[in-house]
Amino acid sequence: MIIVLQAEATSDQVDHIVERLTEMGLKSEVSRGIKRTVIGVIGEEDVVRNAPLRAMPGVEDVVPILKPYKLASREFQAEDSVFDLGHGVTIGGGALAQIAGPCAIENEDVLREIAQSVRAAGANILRGGAFKPRTSPYSFQGLGEDGLKMLRTVGDELGMPVITEVMDPRQVELIDRYTDIFQIGARNMQNFNLLSEVGGTSRPVMIKRGMSASVNDLLMSAEYILASGNKQVILCERGIRSFDPSTRNVLDLAIVPNVKGLSHLPIIVDPSHATGRPELIPSMALAGVAAGADGIHIEVHCRPEEAASDGQQALLPAQYAEVMQQMTQMAELLGKTIPQPEGATV
Amino acid sequence: MIIVLQAEATSDQVDHIVERLTEMGLKSEVSRGIKRTVIGVIGEEDVVRNAPLRAMPGVEDVVPILKPYKLASREFQAEDSVFDLGHGVTIGGGALAQIAGPCAIENEDVLREIAQSVRAAGANILRGGAFKPRTSPYSFQGLGEDGLKMLRTVGDELGMPVITEVMDPRQVELIDRYTDIFQIGARNMQNFNLLSEVGGTSRPVMIKRGMSASVNDLLMSAEYILASGNKQVILCERGIRSFDPSTRNVLDLAIVPNVKGLSHLPIIVDPSHATGRPELIPSMALAGVAAGADGIHIEVHCRPEEAASDGQQALLPAQYAEVMQQMTQMAELLGKTIPQPEGATV
Amino acid sequence: MIIVLQAEATSDQVDHIVERLTEMGLKSEVSRGIKRTVIGVIGEEDVVRNAPLRAMPGVEDVVPILKPYKLASREFQAEDSVFDLGHGVTIGGGALAQIAGPCAIENEDVLREIAQSVRAAGANILRGGAFKPRTSPYSFQGLGEDGLKMLRTVGDELGMPVITEVMDPRQVELIDRYTDIFQIGARNMQNFNLLSEVGGTSRPVMIKRGMSASVNDLLMSAEYILASGNKQVILCERGIRSFDPSTRNVLDLAIVPNVKGLSHLPIIVDPSHATGRPELIPSMALAGVAAGADGIHIEVHCRPEEAASDGQQALLPAQYAEVMQQMTQMAELLGKTIPQPEGATV
Amino acid sequence: MIIVLQAEATSDQVDHIVERLTEMGLKSEVSRGIKRTVIGVIGEEDVVRNAPLRAMPGVEDVVPILKPYKLASREFQAEDSVFDLGHGVTIGGGALAQIAGPCAIENEDVLREIAQSVRAAGANILRGGAFKPRTSPYSFQGLGEDGLKMLRTVGDELGMPVITEVMDPRQVELIDRYTDIFQIGARNMQNFNLLSEVGGTSRPVMIKRGMSASVNDLLMSAEYILASGNKQVILCERGIRSFDPSTRNVLDLAIVPNVKGLSHLPIIVDPSHATGRPELIPSMALAGVAAGADGIHIEVHCRPEEAASDGQQALLPAQYAEVMQQMTQMAELLGKTIPQPEGATV
Repeated sequence: MIIVLQAEATSDQVDHIVERLTEMGLKSEVSRGIKRTVIGVIGEEDVVRNAPLRAMPGVEDVVPILKPYKLASREFQAEDSVFDLGHGVTIGGGALAQIAGPCAIENEDVLREIAQSVRAAGANILRGGAFKPRTSPYSFQGLGEDGLKMLRTVGDELGMPVITEVMDPRQVELIDRYTDIFQIGARNMQNFNLLSEVGGTSRPVMIKRGMSASVNDLLMSAEYILASGNKQVILCERGIRSFDPSTRNVLDLAIVPNVKGLSHLPIIVDPSHATGRPELIPSMALAGVAAGADGIHIEVHCRPEEAASDGQQALLPAQYAEVMQQMTQMAELLGKTIPQPEGATV
Repeated sequence: MIIVLQAEATSDQVDHIVERLTEMGLKSEVSRGIKRTVIGVIGEEDVVRNAPLRAMPGVEDVVPILKPYKLASREFQAEDSVFDLGHGVTIGGGALAQIAGPCAIENEDVLREIAQSVRAAGANILRGGAFKPRTSPYSFQGLGEDGLKMLRTVGDELGMPVITEVMDPRQVELIDRYTDIFQIGARNMQNFNLLSEVGGTSRPVMIKRGMSASVNDLLMSAEYILASGNKQVILCERGIRSFDPSTRNVLDLAIVPNVKGLSHLPIIVDPSHATGRPELIPSMALAGVAAGADGIHIEVHCRPEEAASDGQQALLPAQYAEVMQQMTQMAELLGKTIPQPEGATV
Repeated sequence: MIIVLQAEATSDQVDHIVERLTEMGLKSEVSRGIKRTVIGVIGEEDVVRNAPLRAMPGVEDVVPILKPYKLASREFQAEDSVFDLGHGVTIGGGALAQIAGPCAIENEDVLREIAQSVRAAGANILRGGAFKPRTSPYSFQGLGEDGLKMLRTVGDELGMPVITEVMDPRQVELIDRYTDIFQIGARNMQNFNLLSEVGGTSRPVMIKRGMSASVNDLLMSAEYILASGNKQVILCERGIRSFDPSTRNVLDLAIVPNVKGLSHLPIIVDPSHATGRPELIPSMALAGVAAGADGIHIEVHCRPEEAASDGQQALLPAQYAEVMQQMTQMAELLGKTIPQPEGATV
Repeated sequence: MIIVLQAEATSDQVDHIVERLTEMGLKSEVSRGIKRTVIGVIGEEDVVRNAPLRAMPGVEDVVPILKPYKLASREFQAEDSVFDLGHGVTIGGGALAQIAGPCAIENEDVLREIAQSVRAAGANILRGGAFKPRTSPYSFQGLGEDGLKMLRTVGDELGMPVITEVMDPRQVELIDRYTDIFQIGARNMQNFNLLSEVGGTSRPVMIKRGMSASVNDLLMSAEYILASGNKQVILCERGIRSFDPSTRNVLDLAIVPNVKGLSHLPIIVDPSHATGRPELIPSMALAGVAAGADGIHIEVHCRPEEAASDGQQALLPAQYAEVMQQMTQMAELLGKTIPQPEGATV
C-alpha cells in the first residue's frame, strides 16, 4: 500500500499514522515530495490489506500495490490450470470447452433433439437450465429437479458432461447429484454465501462475470470459491452493461488476455448472453477463440419461437454447426484442440 | 407490445405471426408504413409479456408498451405506501426515515456509543451489519447472531427500530427473530430466491439498488417480494457504477422523482455507500431530501480508524448531528417530518 | 509519481529507470517491499507529468500523486472564484446564477415572451441557442447570426446578461460581439482548439461536462481555457451517460461538492439536459441547490410542442416560476442569494 | 414513429395529437389497447423524425421505428462500400487496411525507421499525428505542418498512403495538401462543424467512435460527412468508457457485425487505444479480424520510452511483425486479403 497524504497534512498526523502502522506490525517508509508526502507500507499481505488506512486523519488516498486475490493469481501458480470435466473432456492448456444447449430445459424430447444436434456438431459439454434466474416473478422459473433428471439422462445417453445453474445455497446438494459442473450466473457473482457453498463441493464451477463487475471483482469471487477449498474454477465473460441499447450487453473480449496475465484460471466466452442477437453470435464466437479463450458457450434451440426462455438469442442447430466448423479451423490455426467426449454416441 | 417487422419481412411472415398471436389468445393490429410494417399486440398483460415474439421469423424489434411490474406500480396503487416500522416510526406520505449506525457491529459498547449519538441527533432507525457481504474472503465477515443480539439489545434500550442485512435465504428465520426491517444489499438485488424468502415474512424489507440495475430492474426485484405476499417494500438508491473513479459510485438522485412517478413505494437515499467519501456525504444527504426522498441512510462511527469495515466512509457523530440539523430544516421547508420513536430514551 | 515495478523486475531495470529519471532532472526513491519494488519520483510537476515512465521495461504501473491540473486547483487558489457576468449579476461566493430560456432561438417574439416570463420569475441570465449541435444533419441547426441579434436585443431590453453556445473556433469572433458568456457544449468539452480559442477572449466561459468525462477530464478542459489566459471559467454538470434508458442521462450531483474540494471554479447544474423529462426537473433543480451548486440552468418554452429543438424537456413558464420560488427559499435557508440584474425591466 | 399515450390520456388529447399530425402532413393510426392507446405515425421520414411529438400533452413515450440515418444505411446501399485509399490499397469487400505507425510524429528519422519496419511487416497504410488532441494543455501538441511534411515524404518514399488526424475545421485545407486519409478522433466524433468540413473534401475520412457513443451516434456522425457530399467514410472502433480501470477502454468488437448489418460502410478496429496495454494488443487485433473488421489500426514505435506521446501503448516493430503474420493467416482462413501498395519499396 502507498498512503498519499493531504497537502496540508501535519507532521503530527504523519507520526500518528506511522505509529498505528507499527502497532499493526507494518513497516513504513516516509517519502517527502515537493507537494505531497507519501508513506510506503510494507508487511504481511493480509495485514496490509485489512488495515483501515483511509480513515486516518491526514490521508488523501491509499494506493494498493498488491493484487487483492492470492490463490487465483499467476504469482501463486505460474502454469495454466487444466481441469478434467468428465468423459475425458478437459479445459485449459490448449483444450477448448464447447458448451451448447438450450437456455432452459423444457422437456426431455426437445432437450434430446437439441443435444444430439450440438453433439453432432462437435460440442463437448451440454448445458440446460433447471432453476432459472428471471427478472420477472411471472416468467417461467424452470422445471427444478425434473429438469435436472432430464439433463443427466440425455448427457449420459450422449456421453457428454453437463452444466447447469445453481442459484441458492440450499440447491447445492440437490444439483450436485445430477451435474458435472456448477454454473454461477452473473447476477449471483457476488452472492458470497453461494460461492462458499459450491466452494465446499468437489465439482468444477463456472462463474459468470457480473454485469458491472471489474476483472478484480471477478477474480475476488473466484477467490471465495478457491479459499473454500475447491480449486476447479472456470471464469466466464458474458458481457457488461453499457449505454448502448443495440446489444444486450457489451462483450469485453480484452478480459481474456487480461485474465491470462493475472490468473492461471481458464476463461470461457459466452456470446449468446452478451449480444442477445443471433446474427452477432457467430462472429463473436470466432473472435472469442481468436482472443485466446478456453471455451465458448452458445445457446442453441431447435424451435426458438417455442422456447420457454430467451428463445430470441438462440442459434438454430444448423447455424451452430456452421460456427463450430469455423471455430474448429481457427482452433487448429492457433494450435488448440476441442476434446471430444470419450465413448460419446452421436 | 408492438412488433416491428424487418424491412424485407414477407406477408407470409406477417400471417404466421398473427396466427401465433391468435393461438395465444392475443389480438393483433397490423399497420403498414412506408418502410416498415408494425403489429400492435393487445391482450392480457401476462400473456403478452411472456410471448416469445422476438424469436419469430421476420421480427426486427419488439417494443414493450406496458411496464413489466404490476404490484409495484402507481397504476396498481395510486396513493403513496406508508409503513409502520415499529416504535411509532413511519415511512412514506411525508414521514422521513433517518437510518444511522455503524457499517458492521463490532462490539456492544461501540454500538451503544454510536447509537446513543445518532439517537440524540434525531435518527429514528438504528442500522448495523451482523452478516457482511465483503468482496474479499479474507475480510471481516461480521459477528453473526452475536451481532444481531447486540443490535436488538441496543435498539430496545433506545426505543429504536433496527435494520440489518440478510444475505442468504437460510438466514431469514434467524434474522427475523432480531430485526424490525430486513435489508437486501445491492449485490443481492437480483438474488431472486432471497427476495422470495423475505417476501414470505411479515417484516418491511429495504432493497438496495444494484450497481448496474435500471429503475425497471429495481422495481422488478421489489415485485418479487410483493408477489410473495409481503407488501412492505422500501427502495434504496446507493449509487451506480460509472467510469469516474473519484467517487465510489454515482448517486443517481433523479431516481427519486422517477420512482415517485412509477411506483407507490417509498425510496431512501444512501449517500455513504454512493460516494464513499465523508466530505461529500452531508451535501448529498441534503440533496436527497431536496429531491424528495422518503429517508436518508448514513453510516456513523465514533472511531472510524478502528472500524472493522468501511471506516473511511463513516461520519463522526458530530458531523452527523450537524447534517441532521440541516436535514430537519429542509424537511420543514418541504412540509415533511422526521418521526421520533415513541418512548425513546436518549 | 510512483512507479510500481513488476514482480519479476531485475535490478538492471531498476538501475535503468533511476538513470533515466536522473537524466530528466528527477529524484528517485527506491523502496523494496516483500513482493514489489516501488520508485517514488520527485521533481518539477510538469517534468514528472510528461515523463514516459510507463513505457520503460520492468514497469507494471505508474500512480500519479499530483493532480494533472494546476490553475484550476484549490491549491493554486484557495478562495472561491467570483465572476461578474454583466448587469451586476455575479456567480460564486454564495451568489447563484439562474440561467433560463429556450433551447434554440426560433424568432424574436417567442424569445421575448419566454425571456419576460423567466425574468419575472427571477432568472438572472437569459440563454438561447443560435448555433445548435444536433446529432442529425437533417435537424434544425439554429438561426446563426440572426439568432444572436435577437438574443442581444431581448437581453438588452430586459437588462439581462445572455449566454449562447459556440461550436467552432471560427464562430468565436462573431459570437463575442453579441454574447456576455460563451457556452461550450458537452460534445465539445474536449474540442481543445475551441477551448484555446475562447481562452483567448475576455468573456466568461461556461463549459459543460462531456457525457463520459471524469471530474479530472472536466478540470483539464477548464485548464486549457485558463492556460490560454482566460480566468473566468464556469463548470456545468449536465448528466453522464449510463445504462438506464429511463432518463436521458444521469445527473451526478456529487460532482458539486467534489469540485468544490478540488477547485475554486464555480459549478452550475443543468437538470434539463440531464433528465430530459420535465416532471423530474423541479426536484433535480432543488437538489442541485441543496448540493451546493453555484447556479441552475433550465430550459423554458411557452409552447413546447412548437419548439424547434428539445421541446419535450422544456418547463412551461408557470412551472419555472414555481420551482424558482422554491429555489429562492432553499437559497435563503443555505445563506445564498440570487442576484437580480441592475436596472432590469420586467 | 409510434406514440404511446399516458394511461390517463383523454380523447381530447388524442384528437389534438391526430390534428397536429395531419397539419404536418402525417397519417395517424390510433390503436386502443386495454391499458394504453398508441398512435402509429406514417409519412415522409424527415417530417416524422423532426415532429416534436414528445412535447404534446398526453404523450408518455415516442418510439422511433425508422433508423435516424439514411445515406449510411444498408437499406440505402445494399452492397459493401469499397474505397480506393491510394497506391492501389483498397478497403472493404474483403480487403483489409493495416494501418500502423507512431502515435505522434517526432522527427523524420524516427518516423522513417518505424515506417520501414511496419511496411516490411506488411502494413499498407502509414499513420502519424501532427496535431495531437491531448487532455493536458501542458503536453506535447504535435509538430504541425512540419510533421505533415515528414509524413508525406516518408509515405512517398515507401509508396504508402498516409493518414493523420484533423482537429479543427481551420486545419482541413492544410492537411488536405499532405494526407491521403483524414482521421477524426474520438473526442471530435460529434464536432459537427468539423464533420461537415471534411465532408466537403474528396478524401476518405476515418471517424473514430466517441468514448460514450452508441452505434447510432457513430452512424449519425458518418451521416454528417455523407450528407456533406463525401461518400468515403470509414468507421473505427477504439473502445468505450467503462467502470473497469484495468484497461484504458473496453473494445466493443460486437460493433463490427452490428455495423455490418446496419450499414455498408467499412469498419476498422484499433486495439491500441482501446486497451492501452501492449500485451493485450496482439490478441485483440486477431479478435478484430475474426470479428469481421475491414482493417486494424496499431501504434508502433521503435523506442517507446522515448515517444513523445502514448509510448506505453506502442508495439515494438518485432511484436508488430509477429501479429501481422498471424493476422495474415487468419485473413486467409476467412477468405480476405491485405492489399499491398503498388510499387512500394521496402
